Amino acid sequence: MANTVVDKVMRRPVRLVPLAFLGVIAIGTLLLLIPATHHDGQVRPMVATFTAVSATCITGLTVVDTATYWTPFGQFIILLLTQMGGFGIMSIATLLAILVKGHIELSGTLVVQTETQTQSLGQARRVVLRIATSMLVAEAVAAVILTLRFHFTHGTEWPQAIWHGIWYAGMSFTNAGFALHSDSIMGFIADPLTIIVMSVTVFAGSIGYPVFWELLQKWRRPRNWSVHTRLSFYGFILLFVLTFAAFLIFEWDNPDTIGSFSVLEKVTAAIAGGVMPRSGGFNIVDYALIKDETTITTIVMMFIGGGSAGTSGGIKVSTFFLLAFLILAVARGERDVTVAHRRIGDETLRQAVTVALLAVACLVGGTMMLAILTNLPLPHVLFDVTSAFGTVGLSMGITPELPAGGQITLMVLMFLGRVGTFTAASALALRTATRHYHLPEERPIVG
Amino acid sequence: MANTVVDKVMRRPVRLVPLAFLGVIAIGTLLLLIPATHHDGQVRPMVATFTAVSATCITGLTVVDTATYWTPFGQFIILLLTQMGGFGIMSIATLLAILVKGHIELSGTLVVQTETQTQSLGQARRVVLRIATSMLVAEAVAAVILTLRFHFTHGTEWPQAIWHGIWYAGMSFTNAGFALHSDSIMGFIADPLTIIVMSVTVFAGSIGYPVFWELLQKWRRPRNWSVHTRLSFYGFILLFVLTFAAFLIFEWDNPDTIGSFSVLEKVTAAIAGGVMPRSGGFNIVDYALIKDETTITTIVMMFIGGGSAGTSGGIKVSTFFLLAFLILAVARGERDVTVAHRRIGDETLRQAVTVALLAVACLVGGTMMLAILTNLPLPHVLFDVTSAFGTVGLSMGITPELPAGGQITLMVLMFLGRVGTFTAASALALRTATRHYHLPEERPIVG
Ligand SMILES: [K+]
Ligand SMILES: [K+]
Repeated sequence: MANTVVDKVMRRPVRLVPLAFLGVIAIGTLLLLIPATHHDGQVRPMVATFTAVSATCITGLTVVDTATYWTPFGQFIILLLTQMGGFGIMSIATLLAILVKGHIELSGTLVVQTETQTQSLGQARRVVLRIATSMLVAEAVAAVILTLRFHFTHGTEWPQAIWHGIWYAGMSFTNAGFALHSDSIMGFIADPLTIIVMSVTVFAGSIGYPVFWELLQKWRRPRNWSVHTRLSFYGFILLFVLTFAAFLIFEWDNPDTIGSFSVLEKVTAAIAGGVMPRSGGFNIVDYALIKDETTITTIVMMFIGGGSAGTSGGIKVSTFFLLAFLILAVARGERDVTVAHRRIGDETLRQAVTVALLAVACLVGGTMMLAILTNLPLPHVLFDVTSAFGTVGLSMGITPELPAGGQITLMVLMFLGRVGTFTAASALALRTATRHYHLPEERPIVG
Repeated sequence: MANTVVDKVMRRPVRLVPLAFLGVIAIGTLLLLIPATHHDGQVRPMVATFTAVSATCITGLTVVDTATYWTPFGQFIILLLTQMGGFGIMSIATLLAILVKGHIELSGTLVVQTETQTQSLGQARRVVLRIATSMLVAEAVAAVILTLRFHFTHGTEWPQAIWHGIWYAGMSFTNAGFALHSDSIMGFIADPLTIIVMSVTVFAGSIGYPVFWELLQKWRRPRNWSVHTRLSFYGFILLFVLTFAAFLIFEWDNPDTIGSFSVLEKVTAAIAGGVMPRSGGFNIVDYALIKDETTITTIVMMFIGGGSAGTSGGIKVSTFFLLAFLILAVARGERDVTVAHRRIGDETLRQAVTVALLAVACLVGGTMMLAILTNLPLPHVLFDVTSAFGTVGLSMGITPELPAGGQITLMVLMFLGRVGTFTAASALALRTATRHYHLPEERPIVG
């Protein structure tokens, strides 16, 4: 059965992926409408739909408090949806990347197509199995550490410690960021180990399977890393350090966030503040109270997102740094964009530009929509819109207050951000047609 | 003398242009420090510097009220600076465009360089003369109409009517947007003719000399227009219509702006609201009171700006639509980006991307800087930062309140936006070097 699904996805990826996600969302919505999933006894279709979209798109934005609104059964369904969403996105995005690579290697050669397809199908099955294994191992390790910590340090009874351990491990690896505490992870501020375990788990899911696997195999030999792994890994580290430093410096004196904390707690908060916008989504402080300069930093980081074919959203770290290398090359007057002694193809660069510009268009469109529908402060709107599109889940608190139209806007953004960017990028790469003649060239003035 | 200057600029454009602007700004600052230029008798170097930068960069942002702070002598110096800035930017940008075209046509041929340079120098002198003539004629026509209107409709005495006519004609064509009324052009809301004359004059300067000249010569034969003229002209019209409609719809009911106006006044206001963000900078309403959705629209339009080699700022209409056509081509899977049956070269597209991304970086950097230095509302900060970088001059009113560091940030943005984008674009085009070997290609995952 699993193989049949893999086969189908590999053959018509761009139509099936959004449909698959819509299917999971529909089932999730129906399940979350069951009275036993929530405490209030009312039927609230909007709450069920929004939560199902947010969980399946592993975003973590909420219109109700996960800890108090949902029963353990409801919470279990949410956890299941995030696991399906996370596993789905990692495997499908990885498969599409393989497909694109195969397509590009194929064009120009005369290899019999069906033969290659059979080969890549075999490869695809292996990859999906490996993703499932990596995911389970990573989550299990995190769950064990967190459970022990919750029991022995925080004095939580075993059953709840285990449940919380599994929950936070899963929610970290999938970057879903739903929390079983009403104040998210703010209560763990004095427990650096828990925050660091969550942050590392978020990173493991966020960096993306292709990089995760290459790091596992070649972590001793960075010289052999692919360009994609270099861009993603070093880029991720660089962005983390910048966000960490910005959070620490900007918020240091802010009495509403970390101003009254000890130095160790400030550093702990800054670690979460540096990792979570890309795109774990657990909040260590009340983001409605951060300084404007932290708001800008966080919005930019949520826009960039994490690694490709991982559980994070955004335009992706590699896309962002490809654009940076493009600018460098243009500034140096070089025709070729080179990264680590490899040339980056024109098609790849164009796709990076297209993904980034379409993402900007989504953010502007979404912000405009909410500006028309509500009178909420513009920075809060832009923050939550970027969080939805980047499937981050951090919030300045406006999401629950939005009218139906506003929540639908956020749902569309979550879906586009989760399923849109990478299927679009793959579709673009797969559709590249060759024109056999060129029109005469003309040079409009730029700038 | 003029020829010597032209020769020098043509030979080392990228170093000389910023220096020339800095020179004019320095002289302007010294002149504006003369006590006879202002009423208050104090020496305020920051006011003189900011005004000189704003005038020379034809932006129109102010830290004091132009109408009441400066004496007629001071106002005359401001007018002179805007004329020098406007003429300077039009001629230098046009010359650089010719230089770039020559450079591109040269590369690949074996024409003796000095010979071609002599030819293009002759062409350059003709062009500068034509720009001066067009500018004077356009300003004279506008000045006459406005003077008559001020005298006969508004009952202004002849001397002041003439002074105001010349002032507003000049400030419109150069897109400088300084006003001799403390409420800018808000007082002319009931006088559609004046608003339309100003708007048309703003358009004439803003669209840029290359398009202006081509329209003059070939206005009957749109089929013969160059790609640049098509992109700029149709793009300008399209953006105007969108901004006009958005302003009219969003502000229709806003009691703080046009809510209480008659329908004719609303339309008049929307004409100015549609034209001025690109980048005339006269304000027909108090921009601090517009709706959030109008704020977003206006910010986007200020970012895009007007035509290349004109008196407007921003990334330019042609750059924006080149990016749109790039996205279209990628979405269609076409290797060539084509506009009106002409192929757009890869170098041109890369420069467009670079200009747009660097502009975004300037806006994010400037907004971040002001967020750190002040506690002003973020949307107001982003608005005035975009206005400065786009040399627009619209303001949500925060500019005069900024601390010295904030005003210096805006000055840097005005300078970068005015002199930076087009010299950078030209420098990029001129520096393109050819690598005679290619490195092996590699494809990172995008999105
Ligand atoms: K998330
Ligand atoms: K202006």
